[in-house]
Amino acid sequence: MEKKIIKNKKGPLNGLLILDLTRVLAGPYATMVLSDLGARIIKIESPDGDDARQFGPFIKGKSTYFSSLNRNKEAITINLKDKKEKNIFLKLLKHADVLVENYRPGTLAKLGLSPNSLRKKYPKLIIASCSGFGQTGPWNKKPAYDVIVQALGGIMSLTGHEGHPPVRVGSSIGDITAGLFTVIGIQAALFNRTKNNKGSHIDISMLDCQIAILENAISRFYSEKKIPKKLGSRHPSISPFEAYKCKDNFIVVAAGNDNLFKQFCRCLNINLLLNNKDFNKNVKRIKNAEKLKIIIEKVLKENNANYWIKKLEKSGVPVGKVNNIKEAISMKQIRSRNMIVKVKNKNITELEVSGNPIKISGFVDANHRNKAPELNANRNSILKEFNIEDI
Amino acid sequence: MEKKIIKNKKGPLNGLLILDLTRVLAGPYATMVLSDLGARIIKIESPDGDDARQFGPFIKGKSTYFSSLNRNKEAITINLKDKKEKNIFLKLLKHADVLVENYRPGTLAKLGLSPNSLRKKYPKLIIASCSGFGQTGPWNKKPAYDVIVQALGGIMSLTGHEGHPPVRVGSSIGDITAGLFTVIGIQAALFNRTKNNKGSHIDISMLDCQIAILENAISRFYSEKKIPKKLGSRHPSISPFEAYKCKDNFIVVAAGNDNLFKQFCRCLNINLLLNNKDFNKNVKRIKNAEKLKIIIEKVLKENNANYWIKKLEKSGVPVGKVNNIKEAISMKQIRSRNMIVKVKNKNITELEVSGNPIKISGFVDANHRNKAPELNANRNSILKEFNIEDI
Repeated sequence: MEKKIIKNKKGPLNGLLILDLTRVLAGPYATMVLSDLGARIIKIESPDGDDARQFGPFIKGKSTYFSSLNRNKEAITINLKDKKEKNIFLKLLKHADVLVENYRPGTLAKLGLSPNSLRKKYPKLIIASCSGFGQTGPWNKKPAYDVIVQALGGIMSLTGHEGHPPVRVGSSIGDITAGLFTVIGIQAALFNRTKNNKGSHIDISMLDCQIAILENAISRFYSEKKIPKKLGSRHPSISPFEAYKCKDNFIVVAAGNDNLFKQFCRCLNINLLLNNKDFNKNVKRIKNAEKLKIIIEKVLKENNANYWIKKLEKSGVPVGKVNNIKEAISMKQIRSRNMIVKVKNKNITELEVSGNPIKISGFVDANHRNKAPELNANRNSILKEFNIEDI
Repeated sequence: MEKKIIKNKKGPLNGLLILDLTRVLAGPYATMVLSDLGARIIKIESPDGDDARQFGPFIKGKSTYFSSLNRNKEAITINLKDKKEKNIFLKLLKHADVLVENYRPGTLAKLGLSPNSLRKKYPKLIIASCSGFGQTGPWNKKPAYDVIVQALGGIMSLTGHEGHPPVRVGSSIGDITAGLFTVIGIQAALFNRTKNNKGSHIDISMLDCQIAILENAISRFYSEKKIPKKLGSRHPSISPFEAYKCKDNFIVVAAGNDNLFKQFCRCLNINLLLNNKDFNKNVKRIKNAEKLKIIIEKVLKENNANYWIKKLEKSGVPVGKVNNIKEAISMKQIRSRNMIVKVKNKNITELEVSGNPIKISGFVDANHRNKAPELNANRNSILKEFNIEDI
């Protein structure tokens, strides 16, 4: 009989207290990831609340945008411009491991809460600042939103079809990647703190993060001195590696090496290409990708996408459908990996949102989250727990 | 006089030894991020080497693709199918904190190195597995590449213009986000290990990570029951928030709230819109975004992009150019934040690559990296250091 493994419900970051001054997306996404890993998040809002509470669509008057990012958090409002209220914040900070904020640089200082002064007062505190352009540099005070850093950072110049109007990546990866790097920074600082018992200040810029995810575009530009272009659905250095039109729909194919290309040609009955000087090596296929596409689509158009997917899968050629959101979240693989979880209010499902992609042994991968808090919802319990008198 | 702050050259993850069995992109990207934070990475390749060593473009016969991802790492080849060689690997594992791998699920087990057996033998070891579809579920053994998970995961259905052919996000965010979540998982496991002295096994799926970055598309679908569509450069829930054509070039504008919209209208001298029932609220502007765009572009086309950027910036409206890669990496803000670093071989710059977007107080943000290792380059020094006899 196998030994029963008892899994911990509380996540690897259980025990961490994170005070969260962030609004809208990048910061709240970071603390959502930390919360999914077991950290406790106390969201501190101005009395007006996070702007995202006003972003549609709404269910029963509540923003689903806000709900999906702030599930599982606790909420308290604090007016940091008011001296007495600020005092509550400072008392809470005594207990916190991490403070996350995404104000424009300089805002905390104006409130008398500069990261340097806070670190002097709370030497173990880790402070993470996430902003559009970072705490330093000539642009540090400029405002930024996702589409601005996607445009400035270069990814929009690589995305779409040449000659067509600009394309923004269809989810806000300007914010989201900044959120992910913020989490990585916080955890690195936590690791460091286990060694020297000291906190740190982490400075994340959304624009910097766009540069960090450009992959090989920078080295391609450096080595070829040519400005990388938009390639539609094509990969710059592997071919065939793009979307092709079948009779009914598009499929994507990724024949990442010569052997897979061989299998691909067999399935399409275009073996002649294997000995053709224009296509017999990956380098040549990249050069002649347009020509290759015409040959491939001529064959694919004879049958439907499903026919080709089955046939190519059998031969081990990586292939897939261009799923819409409904199809994507319905995939058996996604469901079996608990990647769509329910947000519950008492026992009623209010919303479905993405789950935790970090599956880690020994811990329960919960299939639901508590609902996002109403404004100031947990004020009393939080103040009581930390023995702080309300004003 | 201010006290001189002495910064640590070695990064917050200094002291960690990471054995890296990964190839191509997702895994190497993860260990690159860990290396930038100070962890020591020993890259273990099969005698044939990482496939990416063959990916162009090349400088002096060396792959810049490989060089940019594997800068600062050490390299040793081990044939894990050979018993004696495998023994070297097992001896190295004794000293490692983390093992990262991105084989297809089941491959390690076939080599007699299943994560479970390794964890029994090395209870403190953290093992991170990053694969196309994850270690579990009906699709776990299927092959995946970036474009496949971008297609299946839904982001391609949100990216591009409706009616135009499919668009892949122009950098491999299928791999890159999986790499980032792998780093987050590893660091969460490290934190947990400081509490109980036990390792974990982390299971990351590229497809899961695509679901995790869909932002509000899932909750929008859940609440509205309509399948989210491609929006070109538009944001689904904020307007104006997209690219607009000026006389010469496109600019992106993000007037994220009513006040910014007011400023925007003033700059364009279209104040009448503020009282127009079709445009006086964000919800209405989203509904009428097409109509609004026509009005806006009619005005913007009278002047060049630079004219409008200066004017809008003065009024505090978030605005930017759609930069190409050359323009992006030349930005003063990027350079001043050390986001482009040199890869050096002895004292000669071989390549320029993206820097570390995690700026953390107390640590030097190095402006160069050591070159990526040749195949097996550090064999002798590694084996000597750990007192392992070569075969």
